[in-house]
Amino acid sequence: MVRLAVLGAGRIGKIHGRNAASHPQARLISVSDPHQPSAEALAAETGARVSTIDEAIAASDVDAVLICTPTTTHADLIERAVQAGKAVFCEKPVDLSSDRIRRCLAEVGKAGKPLMIGFNRRFDPNFATLKQRILDGSVGEVELVTIISRDPAPPPVSYIESSGGLFRDMMIHDLDLARFLLAEEPVEVHAVASALVDPAIGKAGDVDTAAVLLKTASGKIAQISNSRRATYGYDQRIEVHGSKGLIRAHNVPKTTVEVATGAGFLADPVQDFFLERYAEAYRLEMTAFLDAILAGKAPNPSGEDGLKAQILADAATEAAQTGNTIKL
Amino acid sequence: MVRLAVLGAGRIGKIHGRNAASHPQARLISVSDPHQPSAEALAAETGARVSTIDEAIAASDVDAVLICTPTTTHADLIERAVQAGKAVFCEKPVDLSSDRIRRCLAEVGKAGKPLMIGFNRRFDPNFATLKQRILDGSVGEVELVTIISRDPAPPPVSYIESSGGLFRDMMIHDLDLARFLLAEEPVEVHAVASALVDPAIGKAGDVDTAAVLLKTASGKIAQISNSRRATYGYDQRIEVHGSKGLIRAHNVPKTTVEVATGAGFLADPVQDFFLERYAEAYRLEMTAFLDAILAGKAPNPSGEDGLKAQILADAATEAAQTGNTIKL
Amino acid sequence: MVRLAVLGAGRIGKIHGRNAASHPQARLISVSDPHQPSAEALAAETGARVSTIDEAIAASDVDAVLICTPTTTHADLIERAVQAGKAVFCEKPVDLSSDRIRRCLAEVGKAGKPLMIGFNRRFDPNFATLKQRILDGSVGEVELVTIISRDPAPPPVSYIESSGGLFRDMMIHDLDLARFLLAEEPVEVHAVASALVDPAIGKAGDVDTAAVLLKTASGKIAQISNSRRATYGYDQRIEVHGSKGLIRAHNVPKTTVEVATGAGFLADPVQDFFLERYAEAYRLEMTAFLDAILAGKAPNPSGEDGLKAQILADAATEAAQTGNTIKL
Amino acid sequence: MVRLAVLGAGRIGKIHGRNAASHPQARLISVSDPHQPSAEALAAETGARVSTIDEAIAASDVDAVLICTPTTTHADLIERAVQAGKAVFCEKPVDLSSDRIRRCLAEVGKAGKPLMIGFNRRFDPNFATLKQRILDGSVGEVELVTIISRDPAPPPVSYIESSGGLFRDMMIHDLDLARFLLAEEPVEVHAVASALVDPAIGKAGDVDTAAVLLKTASGKIAQISNSRRATYGYDQRIEVHGSKGLIRAHNVPKTTVEVATGAGFLADPVQDFFLERYAEAYRLEMTAFLDAILAGKAPNPSGEDGLKAQILADAATEAAQTGNTIKL
Repeated sequence: MVRLAVLGAGRIGKIHGRNAASHPQARLISVSDPHQPSAEALAAETGARVSTIDEAIAASDVDAVLICTPTTTHADLIERAVQAGKAVFCEKPVDLSSDRIRRCLAEVGKAGKPLMIGFNRRFDPNFATLKQRILDGSVGEVELVTIISRDPAPPPVSYIESSGGLFRDMMIHDLDLARFLLAEEPVEVHAVASALVDPAIGKAGDVDTAAVLLKTASGKIAQISNSRRATYGYDQRIEVHGSKGLIRAHNVPKTTVEVATGAGFLADPVQDFFLERYAEAYRLEMTAFLDAILAGKAPNPSGEDGLKAQILADAATEAAQTGNTIKL
Repeated sequence: MVRLAVLGAGRIGKIHGRNAASHPQARLISVSDPHQPSAEALAAETGARVSTIDEAIAASDVDAVLICTPTTTHADLIERAVQAGKAVFCEKPVDLSSDRIRRCLAEVGKAGKPLMIGFNRRFDPNFATLKQRILDGSVGEVELVTIISRDPAPPPVSYIESSGGLFRDMMIHDLDLARFLLAEEPVEVHAVASALVDPAIGKAGDVDTAAVLLKTASGKIAQISNSRRATYGYDQRIEVHGSKGLIRAHNVPKTTVEVATGAGFLADPVQDFFLERYAEAYRLEMTAFLDAILAGKAPNPSGEDGLKAQILADAATEAAQTGNTIKL
Repeated sequence: MVRLAVLGAGRIGKIHGRNAASHPQARLISVSDPHQPSAEALAAETGARVSTIDEAIAASDVDAVLICTPTTTHADLIERAVQAGKAVFCEKPVDLSSDRIRRCLAEVGKAGKPLMIGFNRRFDPNFATLKQRILDGSVGEVELVTIISRDPAPPPVSYIESSGGLFRDMMIHDLDLARFLLAEEPVEVHAVASALVDPAIGKAGDVDTAAVLLKTASGKIAQISNSRRATYGYDQRIEVHGSKGLIRAHNVPKTTVEVATGAGFLADPVQDFFLERYAEAYRLEMTAFLDAILAGKAPNPSGEDGLKAQILADAATEAAQTGNTIKL
Repeated sequence: MVRLAVLGAGRIGKIHGRNAASHPQARLISVSDPHQPSAEALAAETGARVSTIDEAIAASDVDAVLICTPTTTHADLIERAVQAGKAVFCEKPVDLSSDRIRRCLAEVGKAGKPLMIGFNRRFDPNFATLKQRILDGSVGEVELVTIISRDPAPPPVSYIESSGGLFRDMMIHDLDLARFLLAEEPVEVHAVASALVDPAIGKAGDVDTAAVLLKTASGKIAQISNSRRATYGYDQRIEVHGSKGLIRAHNVPKTTVEVATGAGFLADPVQDFFLERYAEAYRLEMTAFLDAILAGKAPNPSGEDGLKAQILADAATEAAQTGNTIKL
């Protein structure tokens, strides 16, 4: 049995808190959120108590902490939690600064406690099946990875301003997936990016449309493209071209219904909300975290995975801003 | 708040019991099953108590009863429950005999209590969306309904022997869907059927492969085909051809992953277990039952729907056995 | 080298004449049509001469005759051509009367000349591939055949009146395909039919929406459905359910283009004109006729195939009109 | 009526020669090929005469010349043909050197004769429909173009050695499509490339797997990926993400047949030979050339289009070799 505290009872905190509470080998002990009614509601629903963050981290009946607070607090909370002897699951990113992530991981290393980073897409049943089949050899050697990721609509400019920019906020998931699928570190990063969706995003110093090329030392290639707006839903696709064939994971439609008329065959848009699209991924992610702790194994994706994705996001940001190729 | 007792804690009782227990406006009070460990396990999981069926039906803190026991007990339990003032949700069929169903519905009528029959497929999000779009006029007038329904593998012959035959046991779901989609009663039934999958099914006096034609008074047509075996999963499809177009609901694949090689493009088989395929349908079905009770409205599908599907199944059975067209 | 005369230079005569003319081992010698400009145009285009039908049948430099004239003339022309020593390709049907077909086939038998009937769909590359894979064992034993065939729009009522009715005019293609795919003769025919598309068709004594069930002696089943109107194009699909799997041939879209917006994913309608949809089938059909003649083999589909499809169409017509099952 | 001479009677010369010969407003007058039997066969088939290249260019009964000879001869032949007053259709590329192309186009300009370059993919019915719908506004402003192009198998290394490299030989088609779809010139080129398919290609100084990013002055982005080997056929896809939606052209499967078994749903591989995949594109391309000449209009794609695609291919080659971004 793993006893858990969730820090942050917002949108993502609720997801992880509920998934933890409903896991047969876990118990949600505590919920913390500066917004008291949010903490109380989630606590009531899951049978947990409401605590301050300090209390939760100090609590002797808590084995592991789920960090679902704003990004700026992640690194500090990770450090405090591992120093208090807790295992930690932390939403991505650890921090917007790679240096700060490095220092945080050093503290985690000293404390010797497990840390898992919330790259939820690795756990999506479609993407996880795709990865498993690559491991099973169904497409031979991986040569060329294509990742398409497009949000239904851009976030408010106020969010954009403190997001770290598209590459660190949005593409970081795809950069992690590229590493996951290439199974080799990229050594070269190219990027182009524009503000085409909303000029206000450009004024805020960010971009909303971007594409990246990655190359590994052995010559494998990944191409990623992002847009902050897709009228047809939350577009999330992967294609891997290998020596023996191609494997791809298509989008998930809202329903399987199709209407045929003189205009053609109209199938449903894709699921457009990330909490719906990745509901099962979040559940399986929590299961993976709990399984690792129960088995005494290091969870995956690790803090190192969080750092490496961040380094790629930094490189892509610089590549897009300077127009230069970044070598790693 | 609706307080419920579930009678029967087998495979389907667990589904309904859990869905009822997790509904925000319902509470599962009691679980009954002659197999005590099953009752205890479900009760423990849902916070309910274990009762005998007699106790559950008599309990003053129970508003509604979920009948998930063997078919032969359904009609009696419905009668006893409504006479005790309970609302009833009963798994299909009410009985294998239409006459017995008629007598039972008469008792329900006298008691004036709500009765809903578990034709779960009406609640499948794909099929429900298809129906809604028909109501919205997306394909004009319904003219020709095609229902394809194939099980992954035949049940044991021992089950077949007491099942009432393929038409009453399996096709009854499709006959209900045909009525649901035609929105008009069939008046003519044609059927052909064979034992092609397993000769033992033929020896047991049943069939495993069947097709039916239905015609309504206004000339609308439905065609249904069933097989007890589909190597590629649980095949559940609907097509409705209307005056303005065609609408169809495709199967639900296990994942969206596809592998392309020299052999072609291989997509996943369809979900092959009915509890997985219809998990969401069962949840929405329970919600519909509870919503109707809370709103004081008659639930759908009604006991009358159960009777009419049974009459069609009887007619199809006779049509297949005699080779004659059956007029209703 | 096969030297050919085409009788009839209308829509289908042009197709067969051109395909014959462009075949490397055939030469189109003669074109006949009471409408002189049609005959002249096709003759000019293909390098053939214009002849009367009498001349064409008598011509010593003609080895084979392509009968593309109105249905009422088919049987007579077949008889005259085989008696003149010609091989014959005749568009379906030989005649609307099965008795007349039987007499005609008797004459063909006496003459000992090859006769092929134009059931073009057997030669469609999709359907022919489907059939070949069944023969290769890819789905095991055939158990349940589903044929969906829907025209883009009904023909004029004047055409309907002399067409022999939907079953003989339209479904006959599907009845032939059912025999082709079942590889066993149906012994039981059920049919339901309505005039739902256009009341004028009903007034003319015909139907526009129909479904048929066929059963063979060994218990294999075929279901066919027809509509005279499909807003989304010329709907031509086959599904065969077998002991080892399912094989199907989907429709052919106009292009592979798909547009995704908030409304969903809109793919192109299917090809809506039979001459376009079956262009390649017509070409391969002519090749099969010429190959058979050059090899001295009996062509397929044979006159017997034409007769058997007609008998099924007669049975379906009677079944739909009387409501009775027809045993063959 | 346009009177044509085809120079080169190899694989592609036969295609263009036959398409020209079968066009109602064109006549193929002459066929030239140093390999006499090839020239004679095509001439016999199309009713043309055999000429030397010198004779064909000088012939007074020839209005236009189709240049289907080896790449190294293209620029010279274009110059000679326009100087002799002929309209010219030339297979891509004009030359492997952009400077040579520039000089050639200057001569074409002086001569004032029409020149069309054979970028056949613009004429593929799927891609042409996609482009037309973009022009019709179906997806709003173009923001992000994705082009996937993969050959079934690499050419012999001997071919590779004189091909000018993957970017000039293979990706040039995609670079032209990118310009065609972006409707704006790229100003920035990024490329990564590797020899992953066959080490012999790497030893020959070329690559077999490559990806490119293009950016236009207004910030539109195109990403292209190529592989010299695709086990599942000739992979030719386009996706255009716009402000109002996404439009894509899928691959063309060999047939529409699909087999479902326990392994899943297996659809056919895609057409794997470019002459089959683009048969209709070649026909429409020739029609476009002839229509332009008959209408006295400048044909498209123009010599300028040929030059600009070549400049992009040069830039991509340099970008891949140096690892630098190339600004245009």
